[in-house]
Amino acid sequence: MTATISDTNDPKLTSWVETGNAPGDFPIQNLPFGVFRRIGSDGPGRVGVAIGDQIVDIGACRRVGLFSDMADEAAETCEDSLLNSLVALGTEYHSALRRQLSESLRAGSSTKAKVEKCLVPMKAVEMIMPVKVGDFTDFYASMYHATNVGSMFRPDNPLLPNYKHVPIAYHGRSSSIVVSGTSFRRPLGQIKENDSANPVFKASNLLDYELEVGLIVGPGNTMGESIPIGDAAKHIFGLCIVNDWSARDIQTWEYQPLGPFLAKNFATTISPWIVTMEALEPFRTPSFTRAATDPNPLPYLNSPDDKKGGGIDITLEVYLSSQKMRERHANPLLLSRGNFKDMYWTIAQMLTHHTSNGCNLRSGDLLGSGTVSGTSKDSRGCLLELTWRGTEPIQLPTGEQRKFLQDGDEVIMKGYCARSACVPIGFGECRGLVLPAASL
Amino acid sequence: MTATISDTNDPKLTSWVETGNAPGDFPIQNLPFGVFRRIGSDGPGRVGVAIGDQIVDIGACRRVGLFSDMADEAAETCEDSLLNSLVALGTEYHSALRRQLSESLRAGSSTKAKVEKCLVPMKAVEMIMPVKVGDFTDFYASMYHATNVGSMFRPDNPLLPNYKHVPIAYHGRSSSIVVSGTSFRRPLGQIKENDSANPVFKASNLLDYELEVGLIVGPGNTMGESIPIGDAAKHIFGLCIVNDWSARDIQTWEYQPLGPFLAKNFATTISPWIVTMEALEPFRTPSFTRAATDPNPLPYLNSPDDKKGGGIDITLEVYLSSQKMRERHANPLLLSRGNFKDMYWTIAQMLTHHTSNGCNLRSGDLLGSGTVSGTSKDSRGCLLELTWRGTEPIQLPTGEQRKFLQDGDEVIMKGYCARSACVPIGFGECRGLVLPAASL
Repeated sequence: MTATISDTNDPKLTSWVETGNAPGDFPIQNLPFGVFRRIGSDGPGRVGVAIGDQIVDIGACRRVGLFSDMADEAAETCEDSLLNSLVALGTEYHSALRRQLSESLRAGSSTKAKVEKCLVPMKAVEMIMPVKVGDFTDFYASMYHATNVGSMFRPDNPLLPNYKHVPIAYHGRSSSIVVSGTSFRRPLGQIKENDSANPVFKASNLLDYELEVGLIVGPGNTMGESIPIGDAAKHIFGLCIVNDWSARDIQTWEYQPLGPFLAKNFATTISPWIVTMEALEPFRTPSFTRAATDPNPLPYLNSPDDKKGGGIDITLEVYLSSQKMRERHANPLLLSRGNFKDMYWTIAQMLTHHTSNGCNLRSGDLLGSGTVSGTSKDSRGCLLELTWRGTEPIQLPTGEQRKFLQDGDEVIMKGYCARSACVPIGFGECRGLVLPAASL
Repeated sequence: MTATISDTNDPKLTSWVETGNAPGDFPIQNLPFGVFRRIGSDGPGRVGVAIGDQIVDIGACRRVGLFSDMADEAAETCEDSLLNSLVALGTEYHSALRRQLSESLRAGSSTKAKVEKCLVPMKAVEMIMPVKVGDFTDFYASMYHATNVGSMFRPDNPLLPNYKHVPIAYHGRSSSIVVSGTSFRRPLGQIKENDSANPVFKASNLLDYELEVGLIVGPGNTMGESIPIGDAAKHIFGLCIVNDWSARDIQTWEYQPLGPFLAKNFATTISPWIVTMEALEPFRTPSFTRAATDPNPLPYLNSPDDKKGGGIDITLEVYLSSQKMRERHANPLLLSRGNFKDMYWTIAQMLTHHTSNGCNLRSGDLLGSGTVSGTSKDSRGCLLELTWRGTEPIQLPTGEQRKFLQDGDEVIMKGYCARSACVPIGFGECRGLVLPAASL
């Protein structure tokens, strides 16, 4: 957690890929991993690393002999069209590959001529799902989100007694995880209006987004063997942005006693670039400051390292663009800006808690953080909170109002890390468009 | 649902595999599918069909030219070491393959000499996971179970208002699904005793089993497109038995507000043989008889076929064998006997509800029914109900008592279908042994 920051993050580094030196998400200090395909191709995806407006094709680099030793072994797994084999190798391999890429991409690199041939412009490709997610788990790690939502449903008792002891989570659906840019239909479902005795089956009226950070599991663990909190970092490959779309009206009626199901499993969108933990290292920050009256985490969740650097300073933004806004060429509207450092539970605590009963994680599994909300109104990470159940609608520049999402709305989430003496890095976009519901 | 019963189920059929004609789970009228491996081999699994105490190796049959047309296409997918490609083909293919197998295995078959060489004795093999489960969903379809459990936690309001409208379900864990015969460790977890202000992290004291039926999805559906209830049967390959192990003390403390998580995801055991829907056809029975005051299912869950044959008459038994019982060579003790026809929701309703919001199922996905309990005490499908939270312990023949499971306990579940004018068929066993918890 608090290891020496890798020199691949040195703010003085610049690249011969000129667009990597301009302000943006993908400077040489980032080098996130993703899977791309030439637009119009239906062949297998290729593993690449982003720099500026270019993608470095790892397999192509390997074939021109760019890598050696562990980096070469890591690059060999990139011949798959998914990151699963790469993430399974472990942090030493990821670090070796990232280092050799960094060295090749630096201004003045002797291997520039080789790598130049392996660049693919981002505008020539589409990004596809970077990993095969075996299981998707969704946490509930923002106390502010839990308190806001709880206070709407249980005004006297917003935060349940287990919250500050247990990193609450539930299993989500892996089949319906899609990559940024995928449109999806508004779900149908059972909805019971307050003034009605019986439910009806119809299109959801209260469609929402949820702004989350996603953790991609690196090496997994054997069933029956938990991961101690001191080892958690070895099992985390990197992070992405997650939009856990939610149908609040379906959720309200179905969720007791076993939790959300159809309210969530119709679609979950992830951003295509996985930012490695090494790239995020300069942006580590102390974990959430508990109140004096808050319980200490139980020993299995307690790490001295977490107090120093368990949090990560990631600014997260949500933008909305309605169909009418796009027709009028209006810019997407910023709805909220929060920060991942405000989470009550750290990613190490989430991962360790998940395996504490012996549950096995597999490489490429996705852990969502839960909605990231802060203390201020403009840091609330879903419409349920932001419009306070629709009682405080949002005004769009077209004169439209939003309590919840309408057909044609596009939600765009962004994340970036910025600190003094660091080159800012970003996550790219997590984008999704709401299509009309299927006919009944 | 109420199609003509296939002549492969004709009770007059006998086989030249003599052990298939003796009473047992696997007569020629059954022919369930599974994946096996020679004991001691670490090679890929082989797809086989059970008859008597033998397994027919489908790939070997294909190589001696046993099959033609659709059956041959179906058999080709059995060269995989999992059933996923086979189940994806659809009912016509499954039916064609089962028919040609049935014809070859009948007494007097002209292909006996060919098939004889493709038989493998069950005692020479171990059964392995038959499918790769993409997502595991667990329902809660027994009203009796829901009412019993609800009445312990909410005596005034045992059954929640949504129960008779919504086939309640939640997502489970696919990584920790194991095949019958796999031992697993008692889970550790956060447990808060009633008389304590704070939780502690320790081994679960209230370990339980849950007797369920599992549905293996055949062809899946495209995301955004639901499966109408009239088409549900086309998407169901077959059924197996599921033991959804549960740690009640972890569950009580963690489950609000998002449902069970670590209380369930440490292990789920399935029986190795998937009994096809065609083999189960003679045992279809009317679906649950709703009370006059019960609401009708909403139209998307309402099928005239279900009323005639939505239920399935499967007797389900749970046996317990403690370590001391095994040392004394005592027979496993029958704990309960229930029936799958007592479920409030049919398998077609569960599958259709699951996709009603556009959620996509994939071939090989597992849907658990939830604990199968009936009206009588001896038909309760978990210890929580059977011992009424431990207040009515079970006496074992060794003089031991059980409120919940102890280390060394083995739970054995069985299922079989028996009706007049039918040859009984069975599911084989779903067996699992509790090992001591990992050290803290």
